[in-house]
Amino acid sequence: MGQEHDAPVLAVDIGGTKLAAALVDPEGRITHYDRIATPADPDPRVLWRTLESLLDKLLAEAGCPQPAGVGVGCGGPMRWPSGEVSPLNIPAWRDFPLRRRLRARHPDLPVRVHNDAICVAVGEHWRGAGRGYDNVLGMVVSTGVGGGLVLGGRLIDGASGNAGHIGHVVVDPQGPPCECGGRGCLEAVARGPGLVAWAQRQGWRPGQAGVSGVELAEDARLGHPVAGAALQRAGRALGVAIASAMHLCDLEVVAIGGGLAQCGPLLFDPLQEALREHARMEFARRVQVVPAALGQTAGLVGAAALILAGDRYWNAD
Amino acid sequence: MGQEHDAPVLAVDIGGTKLAAALVDPEGRITHYDRIATPADPDPRVLWRTLESLLDKLLAEAGCPQPAGVGVGCGGPMRWPSGEVSPLNIPAWRDFPLRRRLRARHPDLPVRVHNDAICVAVGEHWRGAGRGYDNVLGMVVSTGVGGGLVLGGRLIDGASGNAGHIGHVVVDPQGPPCECGGRGCLEAVARGPGLVAWAQRQGWRPGQAGVSGVELAEDARLGHPVAGAALQRAGRALGVAIASAMHLCDLEVVAIGGGLAQCGPLLFDPLQEALREHARMEFARRVQVVPAALGQTAGLVGAAALILAGDRYWNAD
Repeated sequence: MGQEHDAPVLAVDIGGTKLAAALVDPEGRITHYDRIATPADPDPRVLWRTLESLLDKLLAEAGCPQPAGVGVGCGGPMRWPSGEVSPLNIPAWRDFPLRRRLRARHPDLPVRVHNDAICVAVGEHWRGAGRGYDNVLGMVVSTGVGGGLVLGGRLIDGASGNAGHIGHVVVDPQGPPCECGGRGCLEAVARGPGLVAWAQRQGWRPGQAGVSGVELAEDARLGHPVAGAALQRAGRALGVAIASAMHLCDLEVVAIGGGLAQCGPLLFDPLQEALREHARMEFARRVQVVPAALGQTAGLVGAAALILAGDRYWNAD
Repeated sequence: MGQEHDAPVLAVDIGGTKLAAALVDPEGRITHYDRIATPADPDPRVLWRTLESLLDKLLAEAGCPQPAGVGVGCGGPMRWPSGEVSPLNIPAWRDFPLRRRLRARHPDLPVRVHNDAICVAVGEHWRGAGRGYDNVLGMVVSTGVGGGLVLGGRLIDGASGNAGHIGHVVVDPQGPPCECGGRGCLEAVARGPGLVAWAQRQGWRPGQAGVSGVELAEDARLGHPVAGAALQRAGRALGVAIASAMHLCDLEVVAIGGGLAQCGPLLFDPLQEALREHARMEFARRVQVVPAALGQTAGLVGAAALILAGDRYWNAD
């Protein structure tokens, strides 16, 4: 009886490389999943139609014409909670009224849209590495550095849905310029492309055509000193920013996901070293910093939680 | 009818230099006030008896034997919410069971104890510079640098009541050592004694015996270049830490109180300059950074609010 028999939620994850959709049951399990490459076409309607096809196909294959609601994680920035999205990596959508369009498609259902990094953090809190804790920072370290904050057991949105931007915590006031216009933000140091650029300036030459943080991490594992130094630099910057967040927010768990978090000790050892130097207040020393648990599906699980556990994760109309 | 006729709350502020107590009416107005110097005696009972005398006298003079509750701000650290306090500046009290003692004195009343900087932030949110906003950081810049966070309209306590420690946000990973054991914390740079020590190393020689941030600020106003540079350095450090907090918490208002906040443009100009360089995300550029409005009484008003507006400011038993 009860929740197990309720309809699943349609969860959507909209990013620069792929559109993913899933049906998520009330326990947070993904029962159906599909994805498609994000079209490069600059016409916003092409992207919308591609998304509609993906959702139609998933619902048809699952035999679920009427889910319990629609939860969406989308790249920022966006106006929240109204859901006009302008994802940095999707130039076709600028102020695209995503939430309104989905509501028109599903007029009887709750439709909720939030930042994709927020959805990852929510997923990790609801069903991942932060489960059972009330004060959690979830992070994504990848092409960018994003995050979401759960404090007192509830998602923190801040004034405009932008709380959790750990990527723009300042780790070095004299540091490299950041795409936000600032200087020395965590993201400027630790994002994959930033690491690669730094390593190349130090003489690292990738062996193959595709230059990425993944390749850099592979070289670091093989013992390349510059690649190792790049991860060391990123790990220390992460540790400094996390120490600041621990002191400001009195956390219990920090869960780190995204591509770079796969580097293991090459990233986490310098991170922990910086924490030992900078997170010295007794309440900060107790915090656990752990890899995220849900992997690539965290964002979909979190998007579903905007509907399935809206009392904790949705503080808007 | 209604709150105006309710009994006032007994508010207490326990610091290293003075013990202050007040009766605060349900509108947040202080109707009676008294204070006494904090005794230097190392016997914890002497301090307790001094506090009891202060409270007895205030309640007798006000003709108010039975207030509606007791709200207390006390220097940290403390165990929260149980209220065993070990104020850094009051060596006589180590794990002193302040909340339990006050409950024994007032067995029929709610008794709530929180960090003194938290109470200042709560006061500024409830009746001061943050009034009417849901996302506020209140700060105290004085001998130390403390603060409190209100997000989504509610006080954020974090895992152990220690949220709001903006003084230990890292502003320079290579910066001066901090009393917490870390390095480059905001407090290490911007606390009054830190400023004075830095200025003295740069050749500043105070004209009188008492060497304090107040004297340094006075010299800065008179045009002493080293004193001015010290405030410049503190203001920039404050701006960097506040930029980080804005990005992490998506604030609306930052209210800055404490002795150093009295320095006006000498502190706020470099602070705003650092914000212009580091708080670049659109949602951060909208934040107002303002002087606190309640002055020395903010902590008492906030302590009263732990009782009078407990739905927003007290998340514990």
